[in-house]
Amino acid sequence: MSKFSPEPTDEICINSIRTLAADVVGKANSGHPGAPMGMAPVAHVLFSRFFNANPKSSKWYNRDRFVLSNGHACALQYILLHFLGYKLTIDDLKQFRQLDSLTPGHPEASHTDGIEVTTGPLGQGFSSAVGLAIAQTHIAATFNKEDFDLINNYTYVFTGDGCLMEGVSSEAASLAGHLQLGNLIVVYDDNHISIDGDTAVAFTENVGLRFEAYGWQVLHVDNGDSDLEGIYNAIAEARKEKNKPTIIRLRTTIGYGSKQQGTHGIHGSPLKADDLQALKTKFGFPADKTFYVPKETYDTYSLIAKRGAVLEEKWNTLLSQYGQKYPKEHAELTRRISGKLPSGWEKSLPVYKPSDAAQASRKLSEIVLSAVVPVLPELMGGSADLTGSNLTRTKTMVDFQPPSTGLGDYKGTYIRFGVREHGMGAIGNGLAAYGGIIPFVATFLNFVSYAAGAVRLSALSKHQVIWVATHDSIGLGEDGPTHQPIETAIHLRAIPNLAFWRPADGNETSAAYYWAINARQTPSVLSLSRQNLPNLEGSTIEKALKGGYVVHEVEKEDLTIVSTGSEVSIAVEAAGKLLSEGIKVRVVSLPCWLVFDQQPKEYQLSVLRSGAPILSLEALSTAGWAKYSHEQYGVPQWGSSAPYQKIYERLGITGTNIAVVGKKIVDFYKKKGGEIVSPLVKAL
Amino acid sequence: MSKFSPEPTDEICINSIRTLAADVVGKANSGHPGAPMGMAPVAHVLFSRFFNANPKSSKWYNRDRFVLSNGHACALQYILLHFLGYKLTIDDLKQFRQLDSLTPGHPEASHTDGIEVTTGPLGQGFSSAVGLAIAQTHIAATFNKEDFDLINNYTYVFTGDGCLMEGVSSEAASLAGHLQLGNLIVVYDDNHISIDGDTAVAFTENVGLRFEAYGWQVLHVDNGDSDLEGIYNAIAEARKEKNKPTIIRLRTTIGYGSKQQGTHGIHGSPLKADDLQALKTKFGFPADKTFYVPKETYDTYSLIAKRGAVLEEKWNTLLSQYGQKYPKEHAELTRRISGKLPSGWEKSLPVYKPSDAAQASRKLSEIVLSAVVPVLPELMGGSADLTGSNLTRTKTMVDFQPPSTGLGDYKGTYIRFGVREHGMGAIGNGLAAYGGIIPFVATFLNFVSYAAGAVRLSALSKHQVIWVATHDSIGLGEDGPTHQPIETAIHLRAIPNLAFWRPADGNETSAAYYWAINARQTPSVLSLSRQNLPNLEGSTIEKALKGGYVVHEVEKEDLTIVSTGSEVSIAVEAAGKLLSEGIKVRVVSLPCWLVFDQQPKEYQLSVLRSGAPILSLEALSTAGWAKYSHEQYGVPQWGSSAPYQKIYERLGITGTNIAVVGKKIVDFYKKKGGEIVSPLVKAL
Ligand SMILES: [Ca+2]
Ligand SMILES: [Ca+2]
Repeated sequence: MSKFSPEPTDEICINSIRTLAADVVGKANSGHPGAPMGMAPVAHVLFSRFFNANPKSSKWYNRDRFVLSNGHACALQYILLHFLGYKLTIDDLKQFRQLDSLTPGHPEASHTDGIEVTTGPLGQGFSSAVGLAIAQTHIAATFNKEDFDLINNYTYVFTGDGCLMEGVSSEAASLAGHLQLGNLIVVYDDNHISIDGDTAVAFTENVGLRFEAYGWQVLHVDNGDSDLEGIYNAIAEARKEKNKPTIIRLRTTIGYGSKQQGTHGIHGSPLKADDLQALKTKFGFPADKTFYVPKETYDTYSLIAKRGAVLEEKWNTLLSQYGQKYPKEHAELTRRISGKLPSGWEKSLPVYKPSDAAQASRKLSEIVLSAVVPVLPELMGGSADLTGSNLTRTKTMVDFQPPSTGLGDYKGTYIRFGVREHGMGAIGNGLAAYGGIIPFVATFLNFVSYAAGAVRLSALSKHQVIWVATHDSIGLGEDGPTHQPIETAIHLRAIPNLAFWRPADGNETSAAYYWAINARQTPSVLSLSRQNLPNLEGSTIEKALKGGYVVHEVEKEDLTIVSTGSEVSIAVEAAGKLLSEGIKVRVVSLPCWLVFDQQPKEYQLSVLRSGAPILSLEALSTAGWAKYSHEQYGVPQWGSSAPYQKIYERLGITGTNIAVVGKKIVDFYKKKGGEIVSPLVKAL
Repeated sequence: MSKFSPEPTDEICINSIRTLAADVVGKANSGHPGAPMGMAPVAHVLFSRFFNANPKSSKWYNRDRFVLSNGHACALQYILLHFLGYKLTIDDLKQFRQLDSLTPGHPEASHTDGIEVTTGPLGQGFSSAVGLAIAQTHIAATFNKEDFDLINNYTYVFTGDGCLMEGVSSEAASLAGHLQLGNLIVVYDDNHISIDGDTAVAFTENVGLRFEAYGWQVLHVDNGDSDLEGIYNAIAEARKEKNKPTIIRLRTTIGYGSKQQGTHGIHGSPLKADDLQALKTKFGFPADKTFYVPKETYDTYSLIAKRGAVLEEKWNTLLSQYGQKYPKEHAELTRRISGKLPSGWEKSLPVYKPSDAAQASRKLSEIVLSAVVPVLPELMGGSADLTGSNLTRTKTMVDFQPPSTGLGDYKGTYIRFGVREHGMGAIGNGLAAYGGIIPFVATFLNFVSYAAGAVRLSALSKHQVIWVATHDSIGLGEDGPTHQPIETAIHLRAIPNLAFWRPADGNETSAAYYWAINARQTPSVLSLSRQNLPNLEGSTIEKALKGGYVVHEVEKEDLTIVSTGSEVSIAVEAAGKLLSEGIKVRVVSLPCWLVFDQQPKEYQLSVLRSGAPILSLEALSTAGWAKYSHEQYGVPQWGSSAPYQKIYERLGITGTNIAVVGKKIVDFYKKKGGEIVSPLVKAL
């Protein structure tokens, strides 16, 4: 192990971070100075001595990843990015928490240069970091050669008490231990303070022992405020351990240097003016200057940045040598890094005729996966202990497992997530953020709700995570209302930049995958049935790719029924029954609202046209459907536990009853008179 | 410690459970026989030797609580309830997982006699049980006297691997350890099997060590299949430990007795016919009979039930002796058990005039709590480490803490949940289920999503849990989009039997609490602002209690704006601006959709009446609003990090811009011509 060499600039750099953090929060008059001030020493040691990255090339593939899981401490991260020369100026720091700034209140991936994953919602960063570490492990196992240690970056995480209290991080930590992720190094800022005060009020567990139970290496540094050598040695030791993730418990003083240090008063409020001046004086900084950074600090960090640039250069040389010796692997790796899909992959998508056998859309999903997994090696994912129900493990997949388990290897692409939906969702974000991987994750639709915190961050961060969400309604039958999602579809449909697909048959399922795999900046949830669905007359992949289309057209209709997923064929059945009574019914399938809403208005109005009432039909809550329809039919209360046909009958979601409902609607609007205008005709 | 006395009927009872479980699942051709067969011995020992309950009086307050956290194993619980004489016949068992049966696929509280909390969604039962144990501890500390050990029940939990992998149970377990809940005893069915196969694929942590880290007592029984004495001794030892919850790691064989025992093939599928017959033969049961229960089994359980009836009788005597000595406490305890609120409590609710100062609704909530906590001692709750932001701890409250911590005592009603939203929600369900307590729980609205799994079970189980959900929109400002809930309101509004209140001012906040506290079978989420809100002209508690009302009336309006919460005053401002242009605008406040939808149709149509266009306004996703309005204005994408006024301006949610929008709408509908009909006028 190399030895720590103290530098005369260490202290000045650390105190630069502390005073600047206080200024950043002070100017915004909002934010969290305490953790940045407390974690300044470990941040400086990590970035000056260990961290491999090129600030001028922030997407360099083999860079170390840094995740500030306690994202409220982002003044720290912004300051480091600024010192290192990422695209973040001192003026950006002055715009902390202001409109349109690059320095929002919590770090957002895809918004600020150098931010890997979005953090702030507690537990998310930690858990996404497990995804980053899985990705590194997998890509290394897939592309490294005995003579080429090409992909070998570490993932470093800073975390506070809050993240470690959250269940999502417990899930991810347990899996990380199982997976023996030696490239994952977590620094736990053990400052004994959370918002409610001393952690003694609620968080008295033995965190170290808990992580030992998960199979982690646990290290301790008792004086995180000034023992730089201790910090250095702990990180060095963590890097040496190749078969276990490491957590370093670092005792620090929150708001170190402030008069309020060590109290929760410094956690989330700016320092008072006199405190701020005293702080600067104490550290030998000019008390009257704000946003003052000594030249030594900039110089030091400039050297660190140069070291990073050299590292990338060397790596690029290594990569081209690799390319000479392993041209095929090189081509594949660079393709995957670039994010380009193999040309023609979509030709493997299955296409169906109406005469093909009815199948559950979870099964149709399995057929798609079986077809595309061999041509899209970047597809990597798994299920939260529902593999046999989600049908996500195709025959050619190998488990992603530590080789020592004998259950698979790190080249494997199938992840056994365990019953850890929220952790799985956050890990999915990390897998997507790493690059070169398109993650899919699976559970019942009902339990996507367990992961809501991670799902909204996929959408906000533009992480392409594909959820395979089976058993998507009362149609799951016997498991009953505890497992039947009534409210989930509208929840997910209301999330910006999230594509919720509820395909009605084989072609629509292929379309959903086609869209989801191509959408490199948008997560998708594929809502799939447990029960069999017939293939529709008139469905095609092309039509479904518009998000909505007319699946059954008639002229001068009396009624249009708009539906999704397992209820489209019921709408078609109702249309048939009504025709025999002389009532003409069109049927529209609307598998994805987000995509339909992106179509030209004209097209939308041709699908959901004026002239006749529109009825929506879905075996879910009707919430949200008034946007597309005049009348709504759905599940008003909870579902129930029974064979699914019985539940559909009880709730009237059958061709026969929907025909009755449809007739009632036609009569109502005839009697009412007046023009019937599409709900899409609007002022706004 | 008493000693285990084996009985000749033990084995026959255990095998009765096993064969009957196989029959129950077999007849339904759906369900999970494996865990019931594996856990039959511990179930029999617990219920025959320890469990205190009176099956004929299933709500007896001091009964032991039993929670089957691995709810998919409910055949076990239904069989026990049937043997013990709860309202569950052998015919009910034959109706397992059938429509309208008392034996749904997962146990539902408020549906089946003897079920305490709903389980099945993994981790929920375990975590709710922590709530049951907190409730017992608190009620005991409040009402027991040195000479009256009146409330002393235990909470017993069965759990499998799945529940222990879930983050929600990690959160609850950590808090249970901190709170030193000696009355909580968990039996962990360590059968090494989950749906994906051997737990070796994903769950290799040291569970015992993890629970030690949480501060639990950890006991082991190596042969859970037949070592009844070992099981007995472990439970007895668990009961002796008064300052720590206990987890008993019980090694069992899933599906014990089946040819598939010990494999995941027996987890969730019925036994094949030959396997079932062999099982019965093996246990000396008639192979050709189904649903056969030996007389000895019924006799044994009938004696257990009698023991329970005697226990309740004795307890009732104790209670009446208590009443003689402590009449005041007796009156209060029996009132709380009955669920009756103190008469006149609502008189303490604050009432506001328009001239009263503008305040944030989170502050208005604090004022309500400060007023009602002294008159409603059953209010017990707290925050997920956001006390100072949620403003939930009133001055008179004492922390609920183990006395040894010196931070409070068990009589205290304020719970420091730590950053554990999902665990908090599930614990809330347990607190409500225990009786005598009205739980409130608090976090930012955005993080209610972390607890979605628990919230939907509150609604399904009819548990009165009150969420104090502050920082409810982009109005929280600087924390930014990671903390700004866009999609949360419609998610919660789509959950049946959940009241989502978004009050606009002081009177509406009082109304929301009034309603939520009176709603003994409905959970509520109170969505509250960080920013100040003026008190409206024309708001009253009475009007707000209708869920929606006209806050600003005009005749022959050109436009109605319907809004909620922080945007109602902006709508009023827009109305004022438009009036100066000769455009007459009504404003409707719709704080609670659930309650408004329960009003007579006539009333609804008088509020959202035909004749002029209706515009909805909310600083959230517009999803769902087309039900009440012709046009919708809201937040189309994510929010941003900035002082909130800047965000409102940017997104056009200001009086000035809404006036422009309103004019555009009025013009559009004038130009369009034709009758304008309320969206509430419908065929369905
Ligand atoms: Ca802390
Ligand atoms: Ca198990």
